[in-house]
Amino acid sequence: MTPKIARFLAEHSPATPCLVLDLDVVEQNFSAMRAAFPAAHIYYAVKANPARPVLERLVALGSRFDAASWEEIKMCLDAGASADRISFGNTIKKASSIRQAHEAGIKLYVFDCEPELEKIAAHAPGARVFCRLVVGTEGAVFPLARKFGTGTDMARELMLRAAELGLVPYGLSFHAGSQQMSPDAHEAAIGQTAMLFDELAQAGVRLRMVNLGGGFPTHYQDDIPGIEIFAHGISRALAYHFGNDLPEILVEPGRFMVGNAGLVSTEVLLVSRRVKGDPTRWVYLDIGRFGGLAETEGEATRYRFVTAYDGTEDGPVVIAGPTCDSADTLYEKSGYRMPLALNTGDRVELHAAGAYVTTYATVGFNGFRPLDEYYI
Amino acid sequence: MTPKIARFLAEHSPATPCLVLDLDVVEQNFSAMRAAFPAAHIYYAVKANPARPVLERLVALGSRFDAASWEEIKMCLDAGASADRISFGNTIKKASSIRQAHEAGIKLYVFDCEPELEKIAAHAPGARVFCRLVVGTEGAVFPLARKFGTGTDMARELMLRAAELGLVPYGLSFHAGSQQMSPDAHEAAIGQTAMLFDELAQAGVRLRMVNLGGGFPTHYQDDIPGIEIFAHGISRALAYHFGNDLPEILVEPGRFMVGNAGLVSTEVLLVSRRVKGDPTRWVYLDIGRFGGLAETEGEATRYRFVTAYDGTEDGPVVIAGPTCDSADTLYEKSGYRMPLALNTGDRVELHAAGAYVTTYATVGFNGFRPLDEYYI
Repeated sequence: MTPKIARFLAEHSPATPCLVLDLDVVEQNFSAMRAAFPAAHIYYAVKANPARPVLERLVALGSRFDAASWEEIKMCLDAGASADRISFGNTIKKASSIRQAHEAGIKLYVFDCEPELEKIAAHAPGARVFCRLVVGTEGAVFPLARKFGTGTDMARELMLRAAELGLVPYGLSFHAGSQQMSPDAHEAAIGQTAMLFDELAQAGVRLRMVNLGGGFPTHYQDDIPGIEIFAHGISRALAYHFGNDLPEILVEPGRFMVGNAGLVSTEVLLVSRRVKGDPTRWVYLDIGRFGGLAETEGEATRYRFVTAYDGTEDGPVVIAGPTCDSADTLYEKSGYRMPLALNTGDRVELHAAGAYVTTYATVGFNGFRPLDEYYI
Repeated sequence: MTPKIARFLAEHSPATPCLVLDLDVVEQNFSAMRAAFPAAHIYYAVKANPARPVLERLVALGSRFDAASWEEIKMCLDAGASADRISFGNTIKKASSIRQAHEAGIKLYVFDCEPELEKIAAHAPGARVFCRLVVGTEGAVFPLARKFGTGTDMARELMLRAAELGLVPYGLSFHAGSQQMSPDAHEAAIGQTAMLFDELAQAGVRLRMVNLGGGFPTHYQDDIPGIEIFAHGISRALAYHFGNDLPEILVEPGRFMVGNAGLVSTEVLLVSRRVKGDPTRWVYLDIGRFGGLAETEGEATRYRFVTAYDGTEDGPVVIAGPTCDSADTLYEKSGYRMPLALNTGDRVELHAAGAYVTTYATVGFNGFRPLDEYYI
């Protein structure tokens, strides 16, 4: 928690549940990313947190933007980003959205199969396209590999096809998985892109860009490698595989950029022992899986909880949300403990909750409103 | 699909994704429920679909309402329900919500542990309370058993405690699990409630109500038993265990009341083979787990899909949503097949999608708006 957030909470005691996010931390993260990857273009993954103040701060810092939909492109434009700094980064796009993006001047589009390529050719003629490869994602909390990307053979064919369709075969992308904990996760994939660059050059198509994707981690329960450790391995692999002929490099941080900048403040609705004498208490919060904490599915993202009683005697807990849905149970198996003094009405804060929370809130399952958001 | 919905779709071609729900089917379901349970009070589980037109139709039919939050109570009041016909049916309530409900005249509250009972006593003095028992939920698609309910021993103590706290120990409830396919799922639980009625009567506390919960199924992929089959088993068990001294009976249908009344109309964004020559195609729709189809988690709810090419040659498919989240994959293991003719831009309809869809939509993950809703 930053002093600015602490002061905000103390002065305003905002109604719960809410997100409070310190924009200066976003700026620090952007600066750290720029220092780690001085030669790369940074495309912020808007889906991590598309709030207007976040986008505006990043526009001011010179960030570029990776958008998942026409709606996200529009948000970036409205926040002051220019169209040449926005990538349409979803491999699954509505035809009408491609058309809208093209009319707005968006030049860069991802794809991973022929029908999508044809859609882009039809609705954004002449666009720069890059092909998403499927790569190893070991070490990632969210692998993303089943649904997206294609193999190198198919990618080569598709790049040749892109040229035939009048598109600019611009580059290759991959995604090593989100909340990727292994600093050498990108190295093998870089070798794959270099090989494809060579093969396509021999076929007369000269690619110019490698998009390393995002997935750089934020600090939840477990320690994470620093961004400079990832950057070191990536630079070494790029130098080894591409030599002096380095392509344009893109990175797409989302979680890394906003995760540690925000906290979610919640209220304890109930603490109960579901069986008499059971050492495990159930702690029910006023936010759950359907109020924004969707990434707790399978207990994948393990937030850090902070209470006013930390340091006093604690005991094991199950942590659950407020709805009548039994899937709305956040943590049963991850070994969470909370102070015995914790009770109904107390506040509990979830740290590092700035990414992938606000937009996951449902419009009103069980009647509960989406969480409030404060950007300070 | 009802003729009314077919006509609406043909005449308006509404933008996708959207829900179209035929209110006359809700009325038919209410009538079927009333015929099956002539002596019971029907409390519609608002969380299944809290749309104003649904609530208004049910108010007109004389339904009562099971609300999960103060916000849902407010929706019922605004739709014309009187406070004495609304139950506050969530075992986890914010203290301020209990206070608001009490001020609005709500008399009936559920609980399943002592701290919740104390909260009700403090904020809704004199209220009627019922205790939720944990019971067997075999046969249910959504068991609900881990998070809610208490054992009979604890329930007996809590009912005595309720009287001490100045509350009215009114009855017992249980929930045999949602989308319950087994028509005798309620019978054992009814025996448990009768035993507790007896034991408490001996201790001087005379209970008056048994709430059988909801969970009655709607027709997705699999055939389901008719509501009269459930009612028959329940009546027999009530007669056996309570004899001529039948308590007031409550049922809380949600899915049963609205599930088969609505369909979700979607657009195919992309059909692709992720590996060359793979017989399985991936079909990406413009709605997914984060656009309302949350119950496809674990492939639990298996919607019926209808396309314009049904009956022509088909092949195996994986069905996925439009977002950059790999968890947004609806069906990989359930053996779905779709026509080979299906292509980008085609419409696909999900039948029996009137329950537990609209409010599960996120406010805008990946920038996608919640689905539109039409009540006709």
